[in-house]
This record gives sequence, structure tokens and C-alpha cells, in this order.
Amino acid sequence: MSVAPLRVGVAGLGTVGAGLLKLLRDNAEVVAARAGRPVEVAAVSARDRGRDRGFDLRGVRWHDDPVALAADPDVDAVVELIGGSEGPARRLVEASLRAGRPVVTANKALLAVHGAALAEVAAAKGVPLAFEAAVAGGIPAIKALREGLAANRIGRVAGILNGTCNYILTTMREGKRGFAEVLAEAQRLGYAEADPSFDIDGVDAAHKLAILAALCFGRPVDFAAVHVEGIRDVSALDIALAEELGYRIKLLGIASQAGDGGVSARVHPCMVPAASPIAHVEGVFNAVVAEGDFAGRLVLEGRGAGAGPTASAVAADLIDLARGRHAPVWGADSSLGGSAPALPMERHVGAYYLRLMVLDRPGVIADVTGILRDGAISLEAMLQRGRAPGEAVPVVMTTHDCEEAAMRAALGRIAALESVLERPALIRIEPM
Amino acid sequence: MSVAPLRVGVAGLGTVGAGLLKLLRDNAEVVAARAGRPVEVAAVSARDRGRDRGFDLRGVRWHDDPVALAADPDVDAVVELIGGSEGPARRLVEASLRAGRPVVTANKALLAVHGAALAEVAAAKGVPLAFEAAVAGGIPAIKALREGLAANRIGRVAGILNGTCNYILTTMREGKRGFAEVLAEAQRLGYAEADPSFDIDGVDAAHKLAILAALCFGRPVDFAAVHVEGIRDVSALDIALAEELGYRIKLLGIASQAGDGGVSARVHPCMVPAASPIAHVEGVFNAVVAEGDFAGRLVLEGRGAGAGPTASAVAADLIDLARGRHAPVWGADSSLGGSAPALPMERHVGAYYLRLMVLDRPGVIADVTGILRDGAISLEAMLQRGRAPGEAVPVVMTTHDCEEAAMRAALGRIAALESVLERPALIRIEPM
Repeated sequence: MSVAPLRVGVAGLGTVGAGLLKLLRDNAEVVAARAGRPVEVAAVSARDRGRDRGFDLRGVRWHDDPVALAADPDVDAVVELIGGSEGPARRLVEASLRAGRPVVTANKALLAVHGAALAEVAAAKGVPLAFEAAVAGGIPAIKALREGLAANRIGRVAGILNGTCNYILTTMREGKRGFAEVLAEAQRLGYAEADPSFDIDGVDAAHKLAILAALCFGRPVDFAAVHVEGIRDVSALDIALAEELGYRIKLLGIASQAGDGGVSARVHPCMVPAASPIAHVEGVFNAVVAEGDFAGRLVLEGRGAGAGPTASAVAADLIDLARGRHAPVWGADSSLGGSAPALPMERHVGAYYLRLMVLDRPGVIADVTGILRDGAISLEAMLQRGRAPGEAVPVVMTTHDCEEAAMRAALGRIAALESVLERPALIRIEPM
Repeated sequence: MSVAPLRVGVAGLGTVGAGLLKLLRDNAEVVAARAGRPVEVAAVSARDRGRDRGFDLRGVRWHDDPVALAADPDVDAVVELIGGSEGPARRLVEASLRAGRPVVTANKALLAVHGAALAEVAAAKGVPLAFEAAVAGGIPAIKALREGLAANRIGRVAGILNGTCNYILTTMREGKRGFAEVLAEAQRLGYAEADPSFDIDGVDAAHKLAILAALCFGRPVDFAAVHVEGIRDVSALDIALAEELGYRIKLLGIASQAGDGGVSARVHPCMVPAASPIAHVEGVFNAVVAEGDFAGRLVLEGRGAGAGPTASAVAADLIDLARGRHAPVWGADSSLGGSAPALPMERHVGAYYLRLMVLDRPGVIADVTGILRDGAISLEAMLQRGRAPGEAVPVVMTTHDCEEAAMRAALGRIAALESVLERPALIRIEPM
């Protein structure tokens, strides 16, 4: 084995980049022992050259243009920590792969949107493209699915993939507080961005889900076909009612293979049984659940974000590179599934929680249940709390499995009833 | 990439061997796509040549002596599924490594007892020795620790490593039933062996813990120095009292690195906080928890045993071999820790649960708490249930952190008190 170091070029010295430099410095001995040789930072690129990052960057080449790392002769592998699906991140990754230079990236947006094209370049050039840090931070979820469950057909993968949303939902439940108030607090504490849309509207989770689905099913997933809902409409009332019914509300990404080879991929709030392992993944923790036909159910839980966990994942990829451990981008040489199109959300079949605010007067329940019956939707349970004649009271119903299209049609008719105040709340129930 | 198949020789066609043959047949396409080439069974060895195993073994060479697989020219890799730390399993693995032939084994006893010597042979010959199936069955725990957390210093690893014990403890708790009754039932249902000692006395968990510790700390652990207690003495009463105190009782294997480079490795019943993820790992499921200095806490949960999960792990190792993905046996080229000796259990520091059956008469509590005070053991809480003057009542105490030696000395004095009936129950409390 060669004892020449693996020389790394790092693009992006924000929180994660600084975390990686700190790891490669503090754990240099551990990394070298596990990598079989030292892993050294030979070059970097970041926006502000003058900023003090607390690191001695003497002896490290500085590139103002990150894409220059792709051609730096002293760089064996490029680490892309710029972020974003377009712009310099994309240009750097493409240029590096085209130049036959291995890439390690933490960029989930890039992989979710352009992964298929990048995988083709990587395969054509025979160059590794590693992205453990793109999904679930410090959890080695990519490796577990791609290599650990490699001998399995994976029917379904699901996860709590966004720590901001999980923190908000946990805090709402524990403090019986509303979404807006908890979001504002999370922003003050630095758990949510000033512009939180990317997280709370489910986009970030959808990026990660698309990557997990591609790995599980051995072929890229059309990101535009992923159904995405966020957590803005989850109310403290529904969280409390869920608890009463034996559930917890989590924002999950779920991908599964339909019978005809089509893949269904969706991100939305879910009610999961309170006794399921994923119900107990709280706060900023992430989790990934996968079901292999031989291995059975596998649950992975850990820190999904932050400098340390993300740096740990990037460094693990670098150690694999240093050892010469490679895998195809989606884990397989050829597509493992069919090429049937994505399953549209209208064809989703599952159970539903429906919560209405209705005027407490005779006949309302008959109207609502009549509409469900007309849609061939059968009730599993109904919960009506308190009586307040002439005033609004919540009515909760859970259904047996039915098709989303039927549920949406019924919901439209129910929402139009005169006695139904506010927009009904609809949350999908997921067996986990 | 070569499209020549990886030709495998399988020694042992019991439950796991049959599961592996089934997997390689049923998922041949998935395995080939992920391995980059077909994985084929070229030769086998088992005790009873005549038995019908439901497989067509035509075209597969049969060896009556498993060790012959090490020299079969048509075998690229040997799979050892015989079991046991000595005898043919050991001879086969040694002969294969010496012959420069990669080995995949599910044999935890062999690795725990002879892993250090085998690792030396593997390193000297530059031959892979893979053993994902040896710990926690279908959970890719070996890969997650050795590669996923490769960039971390791992301070502590813990796990529910024996499904039989976890099934028994779960069933005792759920049904408020005693150990002997539940064990007998587990034996009838096939969850426990006719001779259950290996499982319920903690030996199997200790084997697995020794392997996990070696991976986390990058060097072999002296198996003889692992402290081992099983679950025979766990009572339904203590399980119920634990629940009241906010804990669950689990048989855990725990290894941690002491400040001086020494490693502490122990298997015993633990009280873990009811809110911790590991408390919710129930029935035959296994779990592994590791703490990396950058990644933070990682929890892996899944099926720890059985034909399918174990075959999944063996096949994952074969796919790694087919792809040329290798790692040193303990994940590192050189020892990552110091070489300080194992920490003896007497020096363990932790909190304790102590349950006595005492005669309900004046002065007993004063005697007991006086002994604890003399040992400089401070109480965290005390629980005395019901009053029955002159009869036996349970008294429960939990302590703050103290040293095991002090606790054992105090316990000896307490047990000798005239008013203390039965042997006191002592269970260690573990923050998880």
C-alpha cells in the first residue's frame, strides 16, 4: 500500500468546510490509520480570502475560482461544500468528474436534481462520486443502503430527513405550542434559517429522499415527480389529538416501489404509531428506515446536520477514496427496477386522519359520513370531543385504506358543507 | 471491470447456509448488479451429504472435509458458516487465509477468541477477512463503525446484542411474568435453544461486544477480560420497579475507552432511561449505539439473527469482495488506542439500583443506609412500597455514581443483615 497522502481540495469554507478542516487536523492520526495513509488539505477555495477561520492555511493553495480545483495538479480528490443545485457547485463537480478526478460532496440539491446526469459522467469516466454527507449528516445511511443492504431488494425507504422540521414538531408537541411561535423561536436559536421555506416546506427532505430512493431502487428518481408538503399547516390541536389516538406527527420522506415497477416518492406530515421506533426520534435527530427482503427492517438514527456530523460523513468518503473503496453512484451497474413512471400522489393508497371544526348541531355528522360513504371511504374510528350546541367543536375521523383521489374528492365536498368551519385538516397515517 | 463471477465455497449448510443459497438464487440479479459481476456457489461442505435441502446442488462441488475448500482451485472466496471458536471452523479460516484466499464468516466466537491472531495472518497475507454477519445479523453494524464512523474517535459502543435475551426481557415486562416461565415458553417457540446458557448467560453478547470494541478502538480486546453477567437473576419484580422509576431493563454489552487508554468491556443487565432509543428496541430486535467525537450518537436497530438477516450480511461481504472493497480486519493499519490493560469491573464507576426484601421493622432502613454512608455511597432516591409490620417488603434504592468495588463491599454487608431476607438485587443504571 502506498503511503503517499491523499491530497484534498476543499471548495467552501463555511460551517461544514471549517468542520472538515478541524476534523482532518484533530483526528489526523485516526484518519490516517483507517485510510492507510494521511489525508491532507492541499488547496481550498472560498469567497472571502481575508476572513480568519481559526486555521493555519499556510502551505495550502488558495483558488478564488472553485472550479480551478478541478485542474489543480496537487489535488487528488475534490470536496464540494458550496451547496446549491446550480452555479459554481455544479460547475466544479462536472469539471472534476470530466477531468477524471474523484468528488466528495455534501450537496443534496445537486444530487437530487442533476444526479442522473452526474452519475452518467462518473460511470463513463470511471470516477468515484461520493455523497455520504448529502443525506442524514452523521448517519452512514448511504453506505448502509448501498453496501450494507446491497444483497436485498428494498421495497420501501422512509425517514425523518430534516432536523429543523423534527425540532419544530417535537417542540410543538412537548410544549403544546403553535407552529408560528415555535418557528420564530427556532429561528432565534439558530435551528431554523431566516428564510425557513427550504426546510419547513419539505424541499430539503425531498432532495434527500430522491437520493435515498435512487440508491434503494438502483436508478435515479425524477425529482419533479416527488410529492412535497411541508409542516406549515400542522396545528397544536392535531398534534394533541394524534397523541390521544396513539400516534405522533412526523414529517417523513417515503419512497416505495409499486407492483408495476413504478416508484412512489412523497414528503408530507405523517401520523406514525407512538410505539414505532421512528416516533421516538425527537428534536434535531434524523432517522432512516429501510426494509430489505432478507435483512428485514433496519432503523438508523443520529445527527442529521451540523459541522461535526457532516464533516464526519465527508471524511468517511475520503477514507474510502484513500483505501480505493468504490461503488457506482447509485450502487449498481444497471438499473434494478423497471422504468415505469413515478406513481402520482392521486393513486396513493393509505389511511387518513381527518379533523373538522363543525358547528355542533344536528345532522352534521350524518352529512360528513354520508359523503365518505359515497366515496367508498370506510371509517376506522370517530372522536367527537365535548359538546357546545351552536358552537364549533372538533370532530376527528380516521379511515381505513382508500385512494388519495377519492379522499381528496370527499374532502372538497366536506369542506363545502355550511356547518364545516375552517379548512379541514388531513394527515396521512403511516404504518411504520 | 471483469465480468467473471465471484466463485464462492460455502462451509456449513444449516439455517444460515441455506438462507445464503436462497438469497444468492432469488436475488441473483440484484447481487450481480451491485457486485458488478455474478456471485456463484461453486462448492459446498456440510455434514450430511444425503439430506434434501430444497436446493439443486448439481454442478456444485461437494467436500466432505470443509478445510478442503481452502484449496479448491474453483473457489475465489470461502464462506465459513460452521460456527464455534475451535475445530473445523477455525481450521478452515486459518487454512484459507494462509492460502491467500478471502474469507467471509458469521462466526462471532471465532472472531472474539482468535480474532487477534487471525487478523495478523490476514494482514501478513494481505487477504480480506470479513465478518459483517458475526454481529447484529441484518444490521450493517461492522460497516457502519469501521467505515461510516471511520473519521471519528469512538468513545463508547453499546448494544442489545442477543435477541433471545431481549425477547425474554420484553416478554417478562409485557406479561409481568417470571424468567423461568418465559424461558420455557421461548424454548417451545424456538426463540431459545434447548441449552440456553450461551445466550442467557451473556456469552454470545460478550463475543459480539469484543468484536465491536476491537473495531471501535482499532485493536483486539482480550476476550477473557470481558465482564459477563446474564439475565437469569432478573426478576419480574425488578422489571416492574424499573418501569416505575422510569427505566427499562436490557441486557447490554458496553465497551468504552478509559482515560488511560485502557478499555472497559462488560455485558450485564442494565436499567436504561425509558425515553432512550434503546429502551424501545423490543423482542428479538438488536441495536448498536456508538458515539463518535464528530458524528455524535448513532443508533442502529434491526434483526439480529435468523436465516434472512444473516444471509443478507454474508452476501454484503461477498459483494464487497466482488467489487474489491477491502478494509483491515479491525478497520485500521495500526492500533488507535493505547495498549493499557483492560479496566477491571471493580473499577467501574456508575449508578446502581439496589432492591432488598427486608423485614418491616424499625431500624432496618437506618442499618442499610448507614452501611452505604460508610462506603461513601450516596443515595439518589429510595422507594419503600406498602407496609406489612413483621413481614417482608421490598425496599428500592438508587445511588449516585460510585465505584463498583465500594458497592460490592457494601452489598456484602447489607446482605448479611439479619433483617435482609433473600439475596439483594443489584442492577447497574446506564445513561444512554
